[in-house]
Amino acid sequence: MPKVGIIVGSDSDLGSMEDAFKALEELEIEYELRVASAHRTPGRVKSYVESAEKRGIEVIIAGAGWAAHLPGVVASYTTLPVVGVPVDSSPLNGLDALLAIVQMPPGIPVASMAIGKGGARNAALYAGAILALKYPEVNKRVKEARKRLARKVESAAKKHDR
Amino acid sequence: MPKVGIIVGSDSDLGSMEDAFKALEELEIEYELRVASAHRTPGRVKSYVESAEKRGIEVIIAGAGWAAHLPGVVASYTTLPVVGVPVDSSPLNGLDALLAIVQMPPGIPVASMAIGKGGARNAALYAGAILALKYPEVNKRVKEARKRLARKVESAAKKHDR
Amino acid sequence: MPKVGIIVGSDSDLGSMEDAFKALEELEIEYELRVASAHRTPGRVKSYVESAEKRGIEVIIAGAGWAAHLPGVVASYTTLPVVGVPVDSSPLNGLDALLAIVQMPPGIPVASMAIGKGGARNAALYAGAILALKYPEVNKRVKEARKRLARKVESAAKKHDR
Amino acid sequence: MPKVGIIVGSDSDLGSMEDAFKALEELEIEYELRVASAHRTPGRVKSYVESAEKRGIEVIIAGAGWAAHLPGVVASYTTLPVVGVPVDSSPLNGLDALLAIVQMPPGIPVASMAIGKGGARNAALYAGAILALKYPEVNKRVKEARKRLARKVESAAKKHDR
Amino acid sequence: MPKVGIIVGSDSDLGSMEDAFKALEELEIEYELRVASAHRTPGRVKSYVESAEKRGIEVIIAGAGWAAHLPGVVASYTTLPVVGVPVDSSPLNGLDALLAIVQMPPGIPVASMAIGKGGARNAALYAGAILALKYPEVNKRVKEARKRLARKVESAAKKHDR
Amino acid sequence: MPKVGIIVGSDSDLGSMEDAFKALEELEIEYELRVASAHRTPGRVKSYVESAEKRGIEVIIAGAGWAAHLPGVVASYTTLPVVGVPVDSSPLNGLDALLAIVQMPPGIPVASMAIGKGGARNAALYAGAILALKYPEVNKRVKEARKRLARKVESAAKKHDR
Amino acid sequence: MPKVGIIVGSDSDLGSMEDAFKALEELEIEYELRVASAHRTPGRVKSYVESAEKRGIEVIIAGAGWAAHLPGVVASYTTLPVVGVPVDSSPLNGLDALLAIVQMPPGIPVASMAIGKGGARNAALYAGAILALKYPEVNKRVKEARKRLARKVESAAKKHDR
Amino acid sequence: MPKVGIIVGSDSDLGSMEDAFKALEELEIEYELRVASAHRTPGRVKSYVESAEKRGIEVIIAGAGWAAHLPGVVASYTTLPVVGVPVDSSPLNGLDALLAIVQMPPGIPVASMAIGKGGARNAALYAGAILALKYPEVNKRVKEARKRLARKVESAAKKHDR
Repeated sequence: MPKVGIIVGSDSDLGSMEDAFKALEELEIEYELRVASAHRTPGRVKSYVESAEKRGIEVIIAGAGWAAHLPGVVASYTTLPVVGVPVDSSPLNGLDALLAIVQMPPGIPVASMAIGKGGARNAALYAGAILALKYPEVNKRVKEARKRLARKVESAAKKHDR
Repeated sequence: MPKVGIIVGSDSDLGSMEDAFKALEELEIEYELRVASAHRTPGRVKSYVESAEKRGIEVIIAGAGWAAHLPGVVASYTTLPVVGVPVDSSPLNGLDALLAIVQMPPGIPVASMAIGKGGARNAALYAGAILALKYPEVNKRVKEARKRLARKVESAAKKHDR
Repeated sequence: MPKVGIIVGSDSDLGSMEDAFKALEELEIEYELRVASAHRTPGRVKSYVESAEKRGIEVIIAGAGWAAHLPGVVASYTTLPVVGVPVDSSPLNGLDALLAIVQMPPGIPVASMAIGKGGARNAALYAGAILALKYPEVNKRVKEARKRLARKVESAAKKHDR
Repeated sequence: MPKVGIIVGSDSDLGSMEDAFKALEELEIEYELRVASAHRTPGRVKSYVESAEKRGIEVIIAGAGWAAHLPGVVASYTTLPVVGVPVDSSPLNGLDALLAIVQMPPGIPVASMAIGKGGARNAALYAGAILALKYPEVNKRVKEARKRLARKVESAAKKHDR
Repeated sequence: MPKVGIIVGSDSDLGSMEDAFKALEELEIEYELRVASAHRTPGRVKSYVESAEKRGIEVIIAGAGWAAHLPGVVASYTTLPVVGVPVDSSPLNGLDALLAIVQMPPGIPVASMAIGKGGARNAALYAGAILALKYPEVNKRVKEARKRLARKVESAAKKHDR
Repeated sequence: MPKVGIIVGSDSDLGSMEDAFKALEELEIEYELRVASAHRTPGRVKSYVESAEKRGIEVIIAGAGWAAHLPGVVASYTTLPVVGVPVDSSPLNGLDALLAIVQMPPGIPVASMAIGKGGARNAALYAGAILALKYPEVNKRVKEARKRLARKVESAAKKHDR
Repeated sequence: MPKVGIIVGSDSDLGSMEDAFKALEELEIEYELRVASAHRTPGRVKSYVESAEKRGIEVIIAGAGWAAHLPGVVASYTTLPVVGVPVDSSPLNGLDALLAIVQMPPGIPVASMAIGKGGARNAALYAGAILALKYPEVNKRVKEARKRLARKVESAAKKHDR
Repeated sequence: MPKVGIIVGSDSDLGSMEDAFKALEELEIEYELRVASAHRTPGRVKSYVESAEKRGIEVIIAGAGWAAHLPGVVASYTTLPVVGVPVDSSPLNGLDALLAIVQMPPGIPVASMAIGKGGARNAALYAGAILALKYPEVNKRVKEARKRLARKVESAAKKHDR
């Protein structure tokens, strides 16, 4: 039973979101994936999001580029925590997507991550941090992943010590 | 029977949109007004927009600030021409609203006007230009308004000639 | 008899505008094309625009890069609806063209689309939306195109469902 | 027993965070507040954050302006979900704080909200959405708050209908 | 016989241009002033500029705000040197006007000054520098003004020495 | 005897300035070239500029990237008209160079052109426009070049008419 | 005998620099002050800076707004460490001054502080940190000031604990 | 015994910092290098920095990209002068790293250099300028390097004279 729903505005954005898939797999968190556009298939977004909570989804990650309305539109249909990833696909290097995601007006929050692949990975880790509050095994894996990261960075780092 | 629907994301944005009301009144174009938020009242936006064409609305003007999703969300529910007005209500001076309105991905167009009151006035004039293609009396008033503007600017301008 | 006039500031911008040509062809809307620069051939722009309405043109699409004055200059010669496309040809990634098109002062409206190819496609779709108000067969094709887009996005999207 | 810890970089930022306090009170979520600077009192930040999870804190909200390192520094000491609020206190209108919060490199996620008071309110609502996954009574209040907001917006909106 | 023509896009921009008037008067350079809008009164701009050279004008200063097309449009009608002043009248603090003036495409040059009053003063001084090449008495006054400025700055500066 | 002095901040900027050399050659305006850095060889800049007027130089073109101080520093040593070209050599795409050139404080004007090669070409054309006021043969060539450009653009443009 | 030289581009920038004066006085570091403009009084800047090292100056703080060349020009005349303060006096909120100070090309370093008063205070503290390497009594006072700051922030902070 | 400590946020940033290593070697200043992340290995950063002064380090250079907290975090643990280098590794071209480094709030100064390799080189030269105040042999080498640079630039420059 997936606990995380990932929704991406266009299949051309899937590449940018791959680090989210990988990170969830590392944390052994099941997820489901939908490509659905806030503008081209608004009904598909609405029906997916409105049924998400009932189907057991607890966090929704939404990635989109350009005037990235998807995360905000998702948030308008649910009170589940929504994590937005600004995809770097426009000539403005994702600054447009970032502002369209992060500058949500008061009342309907969206959590914005960084632009691009790093943001996609962090969206998955953030979903892990949220689920860790409730699921001890996720909590354990999130903490192990953090330690593993520190160890990996440190051992790699030490090679460069001089 | 109104031909233009104006939809505003928040009642705090009404002041910024007043120049649109005035310009439509100058052109004797009937309009209706709704305050409806893409995020806080998505159902209200959807039902308003989906019924608009049947009720005789031909152009929709949508004004919003911050991560201004309203114009794009409106456009996702209709093929009527949508005119977006970025409202200058955030610390970023409306740059966030501008990018969230203008950078729409291909498939669902929104026409962006300038940030703030000037953009609101131009949204109304643009709606007039669209309706002028179909309604000769609007066409006449649009052309008269353009000439009146030129005359007014010129007579004011001449006072400063030196 | 073309109903849409496309005017491009430089032949080097033609590549960026191709998605507009394609979209108009998909909608079976006839158009004419002129390369004319607001700065290098201002007379050519003026005479083209001033004769456009008489020759049956109902919407003008203008694409330009850098300090993109062309859409605003076109709008100064006509009350027809003008749709501007900021071309991404400068080191500032089209932000200069966007601001020079969208920030028109009150009185002479220009409808700005997104920067680059997506904006060019949307300019054509927007012209279609305007003409659809008057021409039932365009209206039908615009609505069909919108449905086709949704179906295409959905069927492509479903492949990625997991 | 507070479940949310709010940490603010400077007492001059407290005013910007008030809408977070109010929203948590509306949701009847207990919180604690610390003023602690990532740069001027790094030890105070570290000891507060490292003890937070043990003391029962489940979400940390961190608000800061200028080069706003506080949310990222908090996140480096904990795997609890961290919500960052960019405070608008610099000449760059909070753009510096936004980028310093949202552009976190992969591995240590921070959830950024919008710049300023609206972002502060949304940070609290987001904390509520996270806690709602685990605490049914919070879930109920979050959903009621969402409905109350929609009702309030709608009833206010209808006054402006014309 | 004025040698400098000043053209301003709107009478609301006259205040921003006053430092240009003063500086020309300090240099005893005669000028004429026209308020004329590139968009609202394009014919007035064209006829003014096309007759300027014959009437003895040698430099044209053009000031405008928002999508400031005026300097570029002026330059399209003349080979006289054109000096542009971006007026700070939009929510974007004149950045839009600056880019619309300075980012002229190759072939039709415009000389941009700084945003606002300082830019207006410098436009006049720059016109003086151009005329100084041809008129020895202007050259003398330009050099005296430069020395006077240095002396004034130095004597004011010395009061603060410590 | 050269009438235009070109000064470039670094030999790595010479490529960006080539269109200035070409345009001056087209206008048959003699120029001299110096590579001299405002920061690394300030004495070389000063002695070059201070002797320029005496040696018959009438316009100085200065091109530089990054924090492009060269045009302003040149202007501090002379009352000759200085034309600045922001070179696009930094990660910020020349926006830094543009602001460092165009935002000169009141008293010491510099004329900024567009970023990059187009700006370099326009710097030369602008120098031509200045010299044309004094030298009838330059005036003739500047006017011919403008007509040639219009003819060339028009004949190229007509190929694309459809 | 002053060890720090402060140089300010204009007497209108003195207010922005006051926090530098105060911080140096708190550290009991003697300083001298000059108002001198890189553009209006280049000779005054040059002679001040070239004589600074001989007169015992060890760090130079330079504050300026707009196209802030002063810190870079100072650095071109000396190998002493130069600390730049971008003053927030232009419509672009000091972003122009920041880029003109910080984006120095390789070879001639300038240390940029934050925009405005906070940057001015930090420039003084940074000068203190540099001098602390050499003068044990400055080192002692710098360390005390750091501790005092932490204590002050902590005691103020504790009042807000809840 | 190294006098300069270089700390880099990630081994992927080492390439951007190479010009710092080279410049220190040219100045014959010994340095040590650590890869340590403010977010992934905060303890490693803290213990390195807190022991630096005792081990004889006198200047710390810290390079990082994205939301570059490393220089500020380093500065929070020491009163040694810290030099920050914004690494250009994000889609925003290093503007995010620049603002996260330079916009430090008052009390804890960090000296920011330019974005990227040029900034890395200048960080080393700046460290040299600081050490030159105390170590006559460094002072001599810093001054020789400056002269060598001027000679090299001049001899290279002269080849282009025409």
